[in-house]
Amino acid sequence: MNKISDRPTLIVDAMGGDYAPDEIVKGAVEGKELTGSDLVLVGSKNKIIDVLSKYCINTEGINIINSSDDISMDDSPSDVIKRKKNSSIYIGTDLAARTKKSAFISAGNTGAVMACSLFNMKRIESIQRPAIAVVIPLGESKFVLIDAGANVEVKPVYFKQFAVMGDIYCRELMGISNPRIGLLNVGTEKKKGSEIIIEAHDLLENANINFIGNVEGRDIFDSKADVVVCDGFIGNILLKAFEGMAKFFFKEIKNVLTSNFLTKLSALFLKKDLKLMKKKFDYEEYGGALLLGVDGLSIISHGSSRAKAIKSALKFAGDAMRSDILKKIKEEINK
Amino acid sequence: MNKISDRPTLIVDAMGGDYAPDEIVKGAVEGKELTGSDLVLVGSKNKIIDVLSKYCINTEGINIINSSDDISMDDSPSDVIKRKKNSSIYIGTDLAARTKKSAFISAGNTGAVMACSLFNMKRIESIQRPAIAVVIPLGESKFVLIDAGANVEVKPVYFKQFAVMGDIYCRELMGISNPRIGLLNVGTEKKKGSEIIIEAHDLLENANINFIGNVEGRDIFDSKADVVVCDGFIGNILLKAFEGMAKFFFKEIKNVLTSNFLTKLSALFLKKDLKLMKKKFDYEEYGGALLLGVDGLSIISHGSSRAKAIKSALKFAGDAMRSDILKKIKEEINK
Repeated sequence: MNKISDRPTLIVDAMGGDYAPDEIVKGAVEGKELTGSDLVLVGSKNKIIDVLSKYCINTEGINIINSSDDISMDDSPSDVIKRKKNSSIYIGTDLAARTKKSAFISAGNTGAVMACSLFNMKRIESIQRPAIAVVIPLGESKFVLIDAGANVEVKPVYFKQFAVMGDIYCRELMGISNPRIGLLNVGTEKKKGSEIIIEAHDLLENANINFIGNVEGRDIFDSKADVVVCDGFIGNILLKAFEGMAKFFFKEIKNVLTSNFLTKLSALFLKKDLKLMKKKFDYEEYGGALLLGVDGLSIISHGSSRAKAIKSALKFAGDAMRSDILKKIKEEINK
Repeated sequence: MNKISDRPTLIVDAMGGDYAPDEIVKGAVEGKELTGSDLVLVGSKNKIIDVLSKYCINTEGINIINSSDDISMDDSPSDVIKRKKNSSIYIGTDLAARTKKSAFISAGNTGAVMACSLFNMKRIESIQRPAIAVVIPLGESKFVLIDAGANVEVKPVYFKQFAVMGDIYCRELMGISNPRIGLLNVGTEKKKGSEIIIEAHDLLENANINFIGNVEGRDIFDSKADVVVCDGFIGNILLKAFEGMAKFFFKEIKNVLTSNFLTKLSALFLKKDLKLMKKKFDYEEYGGALLLGVDGLSIISHGSSRAKAIKSALKFAGDAMRSDILKKIKEEINK
């Protein structure tokens, strides 16, 4: 059994993600310094030590826990729990569950992170299904999308719980005192959508939140809602569509800026502002998605996270550890 | 009973949309000239005549059919069929059903257009549910999204029919000889998604189409598929999200271009290219969504269509009338 610390501890899956372990370890170390927490790196001890020495990293306050099972993107979540107990994700979530002030961060297999978090940290009492909350940047503004991919099959009551958790997320982690909660739907009228959605609408109307009713696909870009509630199927597709579309737009702008001599000249004048604009849409600035509803902090980073994104995820994890988000969910989920 | 013509006839709802009747009538007349078809304008005769004279329009080849019931965006589709048989949408779809070579075009209440089209034109035999097909512009490329909003509740077999209809749409109206059909899902693996989606995947694998498997939210911007198949709930939300996001991006770019003297100067050099880029994302260039699966051509235009969008819709309707799309659907739906 691994040691249990009393200090705030960031537990990082050093093996997860396209750029593991180098970028993960580098980002984790930078994030540790930013938050002043202890850092535990879980992964192949040899590989982690190689990275630490390669970049001449001071190892004070950094612990390494060895893992021996590899998880690929194709491993099924249930297989990981049954057969890969020596993987970085299993060990890391287990350690987080037994460490009082801690958060687990992984850019690895999302399904495995969710399953191991649920298995090891357990579900918060009364929560029917954990959900993924993710912040979508919208220029000066932003909103929380929940569920961004945990539940492809849903019941109406899940939406109510997603809404309550999204509300607490906004208040505790974004400093919004009275978040506007919207239900993603095909029209603004109460009776729009599938039977499940219509029933969810009724439940949200009677929940102890600032429910603003249905929001449509285009409304979410008008900053109408601080929290957009949806099922994990559409949430996952939307999240990836945002990413794809943003990438696509910036590619098109680049084409415009390189089309001839004058546009190339213009590009020089616009460089700074366009870079700022791009930053406003950059998931790497936001760090990661939070799995809400488990009795612990589990943060899922983008599979293609580099050091910068991991650093942001640790900063975010530090904020989450300092917040009362878990306590509030336990208090408010049955109100 | 209204007369039945032998000539190709475009039947336009002059009362539907935010800018009716002026912009609709103007666009319809321009579209008529482009396609060389006859034009029937359905709506308040007095109002239509006012518009025609206001803009000094030559009325040759233009027929007006009076309607007396108004349809608002709040009217329920079933109410329109039961109680508003003198509305432009009911009369127009009824006339289209009885006119051999015809298409109906409306920028009005989408639910009412779908319901009246289905009621008057009837469903093509073997088609379980009509679906909305819409072309999403992607810079140089584009793809067909089906279903973009007709069915919020679905069964696996619908997806197969959507795919077959989308395939025919691509071949007949976009000149793509072997369209790549993708199923919108949360992952590329066969067993991803809800039970309905997994079953739909099996059906698509065995359909007589070029099925490329699941496509994720970000794949659709990489031009991986020519047809993206999904349920009408997510299709509607995605379609509106594309629109909202495109609008949002161009607003952000405008902010960048007007932030200081040098960026304003750059804007002058970029004006032409940016305008071209914007045009590539402009739904007004594409005209409208086609309701597939009814035994007739029914085209749903955006509620905020102006003359240009209506003109594009009529051009598209002309192409659809000249194509074999209905015949092909009837032939291939049971293959």
